[in-house]
Amino acid sequence: GYATLDIQRERRKGFPEIIFGDGKSKEHLLGIFERLMRFHKKVVATRVNQEKASYLIASLKERYPTEHFEYRSDCNMFYWISHDYVEIKKTGYVAVVSAGTSDFSVAEEAAVTAELLGCEVKRIYDVGVAGIHRLLDKIEIIERSRVVIVVAGMEGALASVVGGLVSKPVIAVPTSVGYGANFRGLSALLTMLNSCASGVSVVNIDNGFGAGYYAATVMAV
Amino acid sequence: GYATLDIQRERRKGFPEIIFGDGKSKEHLLGIFERLMRFHKKVVATRVNQEKASYLIASLKERYPTEHFEYRSDCNMFYWISHDYVEIKKTGYVAVVSAGTSDFSVAEEAAVTAELLGCEVKRIYDVGVAGIHRLLDKIEIIERSRVVIVVAGMEGALASVVGGLVSKPVIAVPTSVGYGANFRGLSALLTMLNSCASGVSVVNIDNGFGAGYYAATVMAV
Amino acid sequence: GYATLDIQRERRKGFPEIIFGDGKSKEHLLGIFERLMRFHKKVVATRVNQEKASYLIASLKERYPTEHFEYRSDCNMFYWISHDYVEIKKTGYVAVVSAGTSDFSVAEEAAVTAELLGCEVKRIYDVGVAGIHRLLDKIEIIERSRVVIVVAGMEGALASVVGGLVSKPVIAVPTSVGYGANFRGLSALLTMLNSCASGVSVVNIDNGFGAGYYAATVMAV
Amino acid sequence: GYATLDIQRERRKGFPEIIFGDGKSKEHLLGIFERLMRFHKKVVATRVNQEKASYLIASLKERYPTEHFEYRSDCNMFYWISHDYVEIKKTGYVAVVSAGTSDFSVAEEAAVTAELLGCEVKRIYDVGVAGIHRLLDKIEIIERSRVVIVVAGMEGALASVVGGLVSKPVIAVPTSVGYGANFRGLSALLTMLNSCASGVSVVNIDNGFGAGYYAATVMAV
Amino acid sequence: GYATLDIQRERRKGFPEIIFGDGKSKEHLLGIFERLMRFHKKVVATRVNQEKASYLIASLKERYPTEHFEYRSDCNMFYWISHDYVEIKKTGYVAVVSAGTSDFSVAEEAAVTAELLGCEVKRIYDVGVAGIHRLLDKIEIIERSRVVIVVAGMEGALASVVGGLVSKPVIAVPTSVGYGANFRGLSALLTMLNSCASGVSVVNIDNGFGAGYYAATVMAV
Amino acid sequence: GYATLDIQRERRKGFPEIIFGDGKSKEHLLGIFERLMRFHKKVVATRVNQEKASYLIASLKERYPTEHFEYRSDCNMFYWISHDYVEIKKTGYVAVVSAGTSDFSVAEEAAVTAELLGCEVKRIYDVGVAGIHRLLDKIEIIERSRVVIVVAGMEGALASVVGGLVSKPVIAVPTSVGYGANFRGLSALLTMLNSCASGVSVVNIDNGFGAGYYAATVMAV
Amino acid sequence: GYATLDIQRERRKGFPEIIFGDGKSKEHLLGIFERLMRFHKKVVATRVNQEKASYLIASLKERYPTEHFEYRSDCNMFYWISHDYVEIKKTGYVAVVSAGTSDFSVAEEAAVTAELLGCEVKRIYDVGVAGIHRLLDKIEIIERSRVVIVVAGMEGALASVVGGLVSKPVIAVPTSVGYGANFRGLSALLTMLNSCASGVSVVNIDNGFGAGYYAATVMAV
Amino acid sequence: GYATLDIQRERRKGFPEIIFGDGKSKEHLLGIFERLMRFHKKVVATRVNQEKASYLIASLKERYPTEHFEYRSDCNMFYWISHDYVEIKKTGYVAVVSAGTSDFSVAEEAAVTAELLGCEVKRIYDVGVAGIHRLLDKIEIIERSRVVIVVAGMEGALASVVGGLVSKPVIAVPTSVGYGANFRGLSALLTMLNSCASGVSVVNIDNGFGAGYYAATVMAV
Ligand SMILES: Nc1ncnc2c1ncn2[C@@H]1O[C@H](COP(=O)(O)O)[C@@H](O)[C@H]1O
Ligand SMILES: Nc1ncnc2c1ncn2[C@@H]1O[C@H](COP(=O)(O)O)[C@@H](O)[C@H]1O
Ligand SMILES: Nc1ncnc2c1ncn2[C@@H]1O[C@H](COP(=O)(O)O)[C@@H](O)[C@H]1O
Ligand SMILES: Nc1ncnc2c1ncn2[C@@H]1O[C@H](COP(=O)(O)O)[C@@H](O)[C@H]1O
Ligand SMILES: [Mg+2]
Ligand SMILES: [Mg+2]
Ligand SMILES: [Mg+2]
Ligand SMILES: [Mg+2]
Ligand SMILES: [Mg+2]
Ligand SMILES: [Mg+2]
Ligand SMILES: [Mg+2]
Ligand SMILES: [Mg+2]
Repeated sequence: GYATLDIQRERRKGFPEIIFGDGKSKEHLLGIFERLMRFHKKVVATRVNQEKASYLIASLKERYPTEHFEYRSDCNMFYWISHDYVEIKKTGYVAVVSAGTSDFSVAEEAAVTAELLGCEVKRIYDVGVAGIHRLLDKIEIIERSRVVIVVAGMEGALASVVGGLVSKPVIAVPTSVGYGANFRGLSALLTMLNSCASGVSVVNIDNGFGAGYYAATVMAV
Repeated sequence: GYATLDIQRERRKGFPEIIFGDGKSKEHLLGIFERLMRFHKKVVATRVNQEKASYLIASLKERYPTEHFEYRSDCNMFYWISHDYVEIKKTGYVAVVSAGTSDFSVAEEAAVTAELLGCEVKRIYDVGVAGIHRLLDKIEIIERSRVVIVVAGMEGALASVVGGLVSKPVIAVPTSVGYGANFRGLSALLTMLNSCASGVSVVNIDNGFGAGYYAATVMAV
Repeated sequence: GYATLDIQRERRKGFPEIIFGDGKSKEHLLGIFERLMRFHKKVVATRVNQEKASYLIASLKERYPTEHFEYRSDCNMFYWISHDYVEIKKTGYVAVVSAGTSDFSVAEEAAVTAELLGCEVKRIYDVGVAGIHRLLDKIEIIERSRVVIVVAGMEGALASVVGGLVSKPVIAVPTSVGYGANFRGLSALLTMLNSCASGVSVVNIDNGFGAGYYAATVMAV
Repeated sequence: GYATLDIQRERRKGFPEIIFGDGKSKEHLLGIFERLMRFHKKVVATRVNQEKASYLIASLKERYPTEHFEYRSDCNMFYWISHDYVEIKKTGYVAVVSAGTSDFSVAEEAAVTAELLGCEVKRIYDVGVAGIHRLLDKIEIIERSRVVIVVAGMEGALASVVGGLVSKPVIAVPTSVGYGANFRGLSALLTMLNSCASGVSVVNIDNGFGAGYYAATVMAV
Repeated sequence: GYATLDIQRERRKGFPEIIFGDGKSKEHLLGIFERLMRFHKKVVATRVNQEKASYLIASLKERYPTEHFEYRSDCNMFYWISHDYVEIKKTGYVAVVSAGTSDFSVAEEAAVTAELLGCEVKRIYDVGVAGIHRLLDKIEIIERSRVVIVVAGMEGALASVVGGLVSKPVIAVPTSVGYGANFRGLSALLTMLNSCASGVSVVNIDNGFGAGYYAATVMAV
Repeated sequence: GYATLDIQRERRKGFPEIIFGDGKSKEHLLGIFERLMRFHKKVVATRVNQEKASYLIASLKERYPTEHFEYRSDCNMFYWISHDYVEIKKTGYVAVVSAGTSDFSVAEEAAVTAELLGCEVKRIYDVGVAGIHRLLDKIEIIERSRVVIVVAGMEGALASVVGGLVSKPVIAVPTSVGYGANFRGLSALLTMLNSCASGVSVVNIDNGFGAGYYAATVMAV
Repeated sequence: GYATLDIQRERRKGFPEIIFGDGKSKEHLLGIFERLMRFHKKVVATRVNQEKASYLIASLKERYPTEHFEYRSDCNMFYWISHDYVEIKKTGYVAVVSAGTSDFSVAEEAAVTAELLGCEVKRIYDVGVAGIHRLLDKIEIIERSRVVIVVAGMEGALASVVGGLVSKPVIAVPTSVGYGANFRGLSALLTMLNSCASGVSVVNIDNGFGAGYYAATVMAV
Repeated sequence: GYATLDIQRERRKGFPEIIFGDGKSKEHLLGIFERLMRFHKKVVATRVNQEKASYLIASLKERYPTEHFEYRSDCNMFYWISHDYVEIKKTGYVAVVSAGTSDFSVAEEAAVTAELLGCEVKRIYDVGVAGIHRLLDKIEIIERSRVVIVVAGMEGALASVVGGLVSKPVIAVPTSVGYGANFRGLSALLTMLNSCASGVSVVNIDNGFGAGYYAATVMAV
């Protein structure tokens, strides 16, 4: 068949396989989603566009009329939580810091992912270095978190500045926000990889999911 | 919330925050625009496409029926100037020089930005090096300016030629005009960064806004 | 011959041709230096390594035993100022801000160039964003300048932070300090080109000379 | 002066400034090292080559004849620990996993850094995917750690495989080991950024230091 | 004319020219297809999109109402096999291994191409390294093949892992599945070129056709 | 205004300004076309898409109902030749050689441009190295030309092979035909720049126009 | 320790681990070499420079005075074959074809590797496309092989031409021979990946070893 | 053997094989040079460094004591012309124009190559766009040539300016002179490929040889 589910992933990694919605036909996506529902109590898919989401909801609602399926169109996430699912909340919180309003969608992907993985999240959005006092005003709430996600596009300098100010591990997410020599996020990516501040690690461009997941992993340490 | 306005920017930088229209939902864009209107007498947004502009005008006109909102579709700028706003004009003028007609939109973004920041602007368009006499005919008006913006795509050679001929600071704006090994403006960008002429500095590809802003900063020195 | 001097440059640009020492044989370098001495009272060469400098000094001292030739080995500049040269100092000063001690050589190239072009320079070194309070402590002296040069390697975030805090034109110089995904300065270069702060323009990687020259041009506006 | 020490860093980040030895003259390096010794009980410099190390030892031994200075030539680290320094060990251990013997130097930089920051380290070296059973044999000791560092060059696939097998946060360090289309580590870097396994974050190419530091940050969560 | 058919290719290469459907007008495509039908008993075109396929079928059916034309919309292949064509099957089989469901289309292009060239194919799909046990479960069937095709996107690590486990030649196909620093398949491509496992060779990004063809060539050795 | 015509170009270069249709609004395009018609007897625009062409024809036909305007939709060229224009044909012919049918559009742009500049053209299409006998069959007609244009995409090897076989100057045009590691023509471009055959020079990717123009220049030597 | 030998590799892959000499200290290299000698009858190291080779020979000769160690300085290979080793020759031969004399070292690495793996090799060197008759003269001996290795630098066109002429699998090895836009082999690499000829697969730049190994794998099919 | 001479090249191309000195051992270089001497009356090698040149001269002088061998150390060319060689001069001259003194070596490679191929050459050096009047002073001598070579590094703008001013075919040679974002000549290369002036074609970075050869080819049209 077109898919070989990794049913053991929950045992190994503490969380079931999360479906990568991009590049899959909607039929494949549906097939995988449904099969995962049989083995788990929470199923999550990322990068699901509006069209695929509508198809998923229509098809799934027909078969599971009493279940609730959530689609977050602002960050393209689609998920289902069984009503008998019991969440075990992790101690402390994740701070999700973003540079500008244009980074909203990636920041939300990170925040929602972390929440789905049992973390509390505090959002500190649009505090980029063009007006650094906005960040300085919020530095305490960031330092009191257990792990920090910084989401920034254009030149991505925010990651270094946060990294220089707090002692917590910083997960930097470059976004593709920008144009020209931004080269679709390359600029912010290189910035973050070369950060002069210590305690900063990096995930892929626009990979809010990866950052949220990583934060949950650190929260579980 | 999705936005943290930088209200102090006018005090620090001499001009309020200018909204980057790209990558923002139209609702976020409207929300930020409106909130800035409460603190300032001039609000400017760049990279606003036709669809967002129509939404902004419709929504804003409803709430502020007596105000005038301007949309420059040829350079994607959207702005509002309060009727009781008093402009303080800067001495001298900015020369905006462009290589070809295809660079028009970026050149206008530079010119309009500088004008919105209180500068007089003289436009010298379509005088690229393929017919260099066109530039030599205009060199005096360029030299008499206080600062020069050169907008050029393809190989961007115009910046070096102007830089070799005038004593004023030259702000070079590479454009993405071209194809193939132009790599969406990379070619012109590298040209301008490696200029053999002295007195040339560079902003991002297609960043007419940045050049106009920079020119205003120099005019204020 | 191998060289066609641009004797008119002083008239056009306000300062004579400055020799690019790289890639020239030491004999060519000497020949050009000497010929420029006949037309001007100040002759400057950049990117002159130790070996070429020794050759220049030995040869020139033999022919002009009473003249003084200066070699700045920490920024590879070589110059001669005629004893009857009268400097006209420009009003105000240039602030040269650097991120780290490793950027010293490029920062000095900028500072010395600006000084040779008649500017007063204030140096604020090693105040990168990993310890941002160092910058905040100096922000007033920077804001009081007429033009700011920011020299930074690695991720180059300092340019954006300074650009967000001061109203003066900022000339950003990316340096090749760093390794790996720094790609010899590309990282800092892209950062500076994509700066979310307005009022920042950029020169080539390691181009301290270009920044110093540009600053002098702005000081003359 | 050439340096502005960040004395407050220990308070902010829990560990004093660590000197980046690359691109600094040996005199500057010595000056900074000595000044930091006055404020802290442990001073560390990375990327110190043999020549600079000899100069540092000779100069420092002369001034501090009773102190011990350590140079690790296999990972270019130079440090001093005051004899009255009292280490507070962190709970658990860091697993440092490397793909091949050629990655030794970067892996050691990571391990030594983590140790200097108070972590216990277990080294699992040369277990790359060309002979994956070597890794599978060690997977339990890796899973029992609190955080994992994976160091790999060439194609860097090891990071994904480890990430797929363990639940702990994985810090991936691409190395420049390889040739040709490796483009000095770019290949391994891109691999790690695009890992299909969740729970993997990345630091700069050859940045063993950054990974060791990050691990310590996570251990302190 | 717009085309010069390579009628001798079957004699030289053992298989007729296969048409590259991309970048050809539908009229040109039809013209070439028809002309090849006159010389061969099997005609294949790759990268034929839905629109061109419909045009081809409509036009060809009109002229050859008794012939069957097959369009595989999931891998964009279009072909015709004359009813009097007699296939000579090659000994053994090709294993086509894919990393994820998103790689389906490229994997099918490889599998169908190999089948059209007379090979038996076994498909082992969606066994990427994020859940490596899925691969280990299938390793025997892979080792028993005569040649292995590995199709993987994102970081493409699967090719190295397979290459480390089997003795058969591995043909690696990077796919453009992924985003951000994947740079449309560059990441997987570099991974595969730098594989630390021996016995791995690489074809172009998304070039399932090339891999299937190569496998058939090896099967004929 | 938005345009500064280079009326003297015909005198300098032997042919009037040719309009670059890309990136110009249709109104600007029309304006420039019309103004050039006043000064010259032949006006040519390249990269004119269907939509702009329809607009041009409609508008121009209205104003000049007796003139003929030609649009070549297969190579996006639009031109007008005054009925009283007298062509002076150049001696000999240009050979335009293409690798595959997919390169048709660029090859035609080259051929039509050369024809518009008074050259006779012989087309030898679809003779790429995958079936090299097709080229060898035509080598005499190529050698008898005065200058050769080679148009090839994918890996662009045809340019080297032709360059190795003929003594005439070869102008190589890389096309963006291909996918994946072709990087929109970069592959063919690099091939042609690094040709081991002597007597090959290169123009931009997909720049059939440039090659046709260059050929005419050589024919005039 | 610094190394975890993969003793099972011979069983899995049919040949023991081959040591990658680059980036290993000479002590590590020696240690690994010696340990492998205990488990196998043939030990091979690649990318061993002259200095390391001398150290290895001196050290190994001291300990194993009766054994013969071979160093091929023209392709940097170092190996030992136990005198009681019995080679099982594979049927047929590998054709190693090179474009120019400058590719000699990589071609030899391929040829020697294949020979060490039990293959007969025929060398056809310096038959690049600048003088294609040299290749055509040898095409029969190439077609009669079981697998072909093509080694070429600069633009690497030879791989496509050979691929177009023979029916055997072609393994293409790009070399870093060339300069400028060759970008250390990138040009030839891209050429080979985008080959319009079918039946061509590619290994890393300068990876003669990988090609020789792959050929042996195919010979064993 | 290591070399297959292309003795027929003179017949095909009008000039014998020219040896590429780079990447060949000095023994191979000597062997090829000597063998070519047996078939031709002029033998040329490019990219021969000082060490290889000394070896060649010593060895060749021993065997051919009455022959003269010329080494041009400023452009690394080595050649021999038999005393009974009769040159047939081509009509007209080639203009070799360079931007700066640092481009001297590449310009000379172009000029000497053209001379060796029977062309008269006029050198116009160091007339780059930083002082454009130097070029305008020489424009007539350039226009009167039959073909123009423009050699320029840094941003390479000179090619466009010359291309805009003259009607003759321009062969542009980017040089690697520059630093930083020059990326070893990439900047000038892209400039020249994207030239807005018509009649400009390009050869590889630093490929003076290729330009000189091409010019001779055009002179023979
Ligand atoms: N947005 C995302 N970015 C990166 N990886 C993801 C994303 N969503 C899911 N994944 C991972 O992608 C892997 C491949 O998934 P699949 O192609 O669905 O088999 C899974 O193991 C997921 O953990
Ligand atoms: N077209 C533009 N190009 C670059 N920067 C811009 C542009 N328009 C606005 N900006 C700047 O982008 C920064 C981030 O804006 P925002 O994402 O709106 O918070 C603001 O500080 C603006 O000054
Ligand atoms: N999907 C594909 N990818 C790469 N090459 C192909 C593909 N399909 C066909 N080809 C080859 O492309 C070459 C050029 O084809 P054409 O442009 O049709 O003359 C042919 O020799 C085919 O073998
Ligand atoms: N400096 C050079 N740059 C580019 N090609 C060259 C150069 N010198 C010689 N060649 C060409 O390189 C080809 C390969 O030469 P070889 O490696 O000597 O067989 C020959 O056909 C020469 O025409
Ligand atoms: Mg904002
Ligand atoms: Mg124009
Ligand atoms: Mg410091
Ligand atoms: Mg090993
Ligand atoms: Mg899957
Ligand atoms: Mg064809
Ligand atoms: Mg040769
Ligand atoms: Mg000069």
